[in-house]
Amino acid sequence: MAKLVQKFGGTSVRDVERIKAVALRVKGAVDAGNQVAVTVSAMAGVTNQLVDHAANVSTLHDAREFDVVVSSGEQVTSGLLAMALQDLGVSARSWLGWQIPVWTDSVHGRARIREIEDTELNRRLESGEVAVIAGFQGLGSDNRITTLGRGGSDTTAVALAAALKADRCDIYTDVSGVYTTDPRIVPKARKLHSITYEEMLEMASVGAKVLQTRSVELAMKYGVRLQVLSSFDTVPGTMVVGEDEIMEHEVISGVTYSRDEAKITLLRVADRPGVAASIFGPLADASINVDMIVQNISEKGDATDLTFTVSEADLEHAVSVIQTHRDAISYEDLLWDPNVVKVSVIGVGMRSHAGIAQRMFQTLADKGINIQVISTSEIKVSVLIEEAYTELAVRALHTAYDLDAR
Amino acid sequence: MAKLVQKFGGTSVRDVERIKAVALRVKGAVDAGNQVAVTVSAMAGVTNQLVDHAANVSTLHDAREFDVVVSSGEQVTSGLLAMALQDLGVSARSWLGWQIPVWTDSVHGRARIREIEDTELNRRLESGEVAVIAGFQGLGSDNRITTLGRGGSDTTAVALAAALKADRCDIYTDVSGVYTTDPRIVPKARKLHSITYEEMLEMASVGAKVLQTRSVELAMKYGVRLQVLSSFDTVPGTMVVGEDEIMEHEVISGVTYSRDEAKITLLRVADRPGVAASIFGPLADASINVDMIVQNISEKGDATDLTFTVSEADLEHAVSVIQTHRDAISYEDLLWDPNVVKVSVIGVGMRSHAGIAQRMFQTLADKGINIQVISTSEIKVSVLIEEAYTELAVRALHTAYDLDAR
Repeated sequence: MAKLVQKFGGTSVRDVERIKAVALRVKGAVDAGNQVAVTVSAMAGVTNQLVDHAANVSTLHDAREFDVVVSSGEQVTSGLLAMALQDLGVSARSWLGWQIPVWTDSVHGRARIREIEDTELNRRLESGEVAVIAGFQGLGSDNRITTLGRGGSDTTAVALAAALKADRCDIYTDVSGVYTTDPRIVPKARKLHSITYEEMLEMASVGAKVLQTRSVELAMKYGVRLQVLSSFDTVPGTMVVGEDEIMEHEVISGVTYSRDEAKITLLRVADRPGVAASIFGPLADASINVDMIVQNISEKGDATDLTFTVSEADLEHAVSVIQTHRDAISYEDLLWDPNVVKVSVIGVGMRSHAGIAQRMFQTLADKGINIQVISTSEIKVSVLIEEAYTELAVRALHTAYDLDAR
Repeated sequence: MAKLVQKFGGTSVRDVERIKAVALRVKGAVDAGNQVAVTVSAMAGVTNQLVDHAANVSTLHDAREFDVVVSSGEQVTSGLLAMALQDLGVSARSWLGWQIPVWTDSVHGRARIREIEDTELNRRLESGEVAVIAGFQGLGSDNRITTLGRGGSDTTAVALAAALKADRCDIYTDVSGVYTTDPRIVPKARKLHSITYEEMLEMASVGAKVLQTRSVELAMKYGVRLQVLSSFDTVPGTMVVGEDEIMEHEVISGVTYSRDEAKITLLRVADRPGVAASIFGPLADASINVDMIVQNISEKGDATDLTFTVSEADLEHAVSVIQTHRDAISYEDLLWDPNVVKVSVIGVGMRSHAGIAQRMFQTLADKGINIQVISTSEIKVSVLIEEAYTELAVRALHTAYDLDAR
């Protein structure tokens, strides 16, 4: 017998039929002798509709009232799933954030969980009752509903698994696990049996949308064993666990890409102390996240070229911020390009294997692909290339690192 | 300066544009120097959709989970209206049943309000903040959301007005007040300036759908001055108040009718003690409400004919209950007829005026309308007639009691 937290996202509960199917799946886990807590998202489309309503009422709306409105979607699903379980003869009860409570700070719209009151939930689970918990929501110290931000139901599930000391947290989604790369680009992509938290974090940060970064961080912090799997079939998914749980790592776990990148280059910036601060300070003030940064070696010693990337959505804003501060920064020309993609290879095996980055550069060179910017972390190498080469690069790297399914 | 409770029903908040219009109206009351608490229903259609979802998940659903699901509609409206008010520069905050709390018993689906915690609400109102309260919902002693039953938002508004000792409770709806009769049948129907609680109760019980009976009872009990008015125009509505507030009553305030009646007649029932119990006991056990009852004078002393009415929806069920208990009741034949209508004249003036009922019978006789059953209360006379005569009877009575607009 195990204690499980199961999380079902919006597509898994998109209509009444799907909610009934989820109930059957939960019943299966109960019948197998497990204690089960379930976290649910809003039915697909509901949250977007509520967000639209709010936006149409007021463009600058109060985050506290926004939370009251958008949290209602998960409330509905939790009640419906509890009913569906009862209909199958499974003892079940719904729980809203304020009822448990899931205590959060009072940063409405992107609250962080502080503590989950687990006594009553544990008592119920031990008595054989399924707890159906509305994801995405909590209770702030101001006695008002808070929400955790987009994808917050993953975070609820992981936090719950940590609080309840669950044996596993199963994240049911519309994909059947974590793949070595995007199967739409590489038909030979393989589903991974397991992956480390660190690799999953790097993947999430470069565009693999399987899990919300924050929930993986939380799982890593509390050692919550995650499984990503599909609610539409019954095969095992991908385990996301600590490095110690994986006996032998692949060198590279995955090749990812993110098209949501735009490149900005400042030509002939004065090469003096403080110049980086004069550029990135104003961008930070404008809440623009800068990703990759590269500074070319200065030719004559008095000026240098500086390139960095921002998300495509921020490009226009970033350019205007730089132009506004032209005098303070002092540059000769400003170039930008949204037609770039960041391709990354990720793997904890990188730490103990030399030549990983070199193989990446050689593979791209062999295909005639020019690398514009490089950035590396302990378990990731990323390159910025022209967007048109995305598929070519991803496929070539997938083969080069021996990831293709046989 | 007054303390006002305003209630807006589903059609008044049916979409974002209407919610903005409501916000403007509330702002008007605030700008005039009033303290304002607002109760809102779910946006028109939302509750029905949630009820459908619940019915599709499980036919025999847990009332506690049903309440979790259906209460979300009012939650959304309260958040959106608070936003819309803030957008107009009006300080506002939404309140859900559990936040105030609106304490109720734990009879989920049709809970009764026990107490409303008013300290914090009053403090906010005094500070100039508008309180936007989700109607229809409360918190049971089991720490779970309860709902008050259909039309419960009226009850929330009145209970709130009582708890806050409001000067007036304005019920905004899609009609502009209480009329002497249905304007669709009698174009000369007049909007009443005022009406007593008792008259309003009688009207509600015979088909005038303006206010939920329970909310009027509550208003009467606590002396809450109600106003029924339209959210689609700006003219004064109808005041529903105690008799002492109305200087001179009309003799008759209104003529109402209810088509939702069906007549059942048992021929030659044994005329002995306990026979009524043998009929109405099984009907009560089957949760069938019986309205008018008339027992004809027994011809020979050993048997009698007995006629009563039930709602049309209950007719089939009632007939089958009677047939099931045929032996215990002992009757010769059973007749039923759904093509009947109950027409009533209502007025507290009846108490001090003789001949009111007689004028009704004479008026109907003059039109050749046969009266099948009669029932009277202190301030109401009702007759059951053939449904085809509805319009003719209502118009004739409206004229006979001098109610036609001049």
